[in-house]
Amino acid sequence: MSKALERRAKNRERLIEAAERSIATGGLAGLKTRDLAGELGIANGAVYNLVDDVDELILRVGSRTLARLDAALTAAERDGPADPPDTLVRIAVGYCDFAADNLELWRALFEHRMAPGKTVPDWAVSEQMDLFGHIYRPLAALFPARSPRELSVTARSLFSAVHGMVALGLEHKLIAVPIEGLRSEVATIVRAMVKGLANARS
Amino acid sequence: MSKALERRAKNRERLIEAAERSIATGGLAGLKTRDLAGELGIANGAVYNLVDDVDELILRVGSRTLARLDAALTAAERDGPADPPDTLVRIAVGYCDFAADNLELWRALFEHRMAPGKTVPDWAVSEQMDLFGHIYRPLAALFPARSPRELSVTARSLFSAVHGMVALGLEHKLIAVPIEGLRSEVATIVRAMVKGLANARS
Repeated sequence: MSKALERRAKNRERLIEAAERSIATGGLAGLKTRDLAGELGIANGAVYNLVDDVDELILRVGSRTLARLDAALTAAERDGPADPPDTLVRIAVGYCDFAADNLELWRALFEHRMAPGKTVPDWAVSEQMDLFGHIYRPLAALFPARSPRELSVTARSLFSAVHGMVALGLEHKLIAVPIEGLRSEVATIVRAMVKGLANARS
Repeated sequence: MSKALERRAKNRERLIEAAERSIATGGLAGLKTRDLAGELGIANGAVYNLVDDVDELILRVGSRTLARLDAALTAAERDGPADPPDTLVRIAVGYCDFAADNLELWRALFEHRMAPGKTVPDWAVSEQMDLFGHIYRPLAALFPARSPRELSVTARSLFSAVHGMVALGLEHKLIAVPIEGLRSEVATIVRAMVKGLANARS
């Protein structure tokens, strides 16, 4: 790699890290490329030699958040008995903890909208979809007779339901729940859903 | 009532209705009091003789949305057998339909943030809380031995879980579901949760 390309790669990484710190502190609304350029000591316009646009910058930060979420869910998966209902409960509580510990970065995953007319690139969609594997695998172990299509629908439903509880619980709007209470509510509801889904077929 | 007070009351109602139409079309982000003043044929500043501030205007629109949601959930409650699990499923599907049919007004309920340092007034909090009664009543019928505190927690969990499924399902982000599929997923998950919650105690 030429010196110039090396410098560009390094600056690109510094830019993404600076954007991550900014979002972690002030949310998506606080992200200003001018401030990031100032922090890196580059011209404002030079930001766009490092990333295509603000959407790409936010998606690259999202990619780092998703990688850490993936690691947290993998740890939750392994942190107890392999019994599928227990595993699903641990993953849901792990999701709750990750959201609470990474509030602004986690919110940014859901609040970010591409500029009008642009779609989320395939690499980002695929990173998001990969995370469903954490829910899909225990469900497949629990319901071996169900088709991949059915399991995907159930995985999506479970995720959305848990996400809703966590999002409203951490929102401090309408519904404000202390984190310990939230963790226990999430665990209760996931356990009930899994039990109910198993009974529905028996 | 004096002529002047009558005129003010009428203009206030027209202002709230104009804000409602604006939010229904362009979301919270598209709401401009200047446009509303133009539509009513009043001076820009005169808006603030009719409502305290933009927060109050948005909350008054929210109050109308909540009243229509309340009517929709009451209809869903009555539109079938009184059996509590069935009733809870109908209420959840009714919530899903209401959100789909009133997308921007429904989103505004959750997206609106008060100006910094201001809190949501009691009348608005109390209107929001009243809606939990739709979930609380069938739960109380289903679980007569549980305390009001336990039932409130369960009602909140069920609401958050259904809200999450509906919000992500209608979001067309990460997870896009056609409305018929979403209705059936919501019904499946609510039925499973209720069944699982009943089994947890038996």
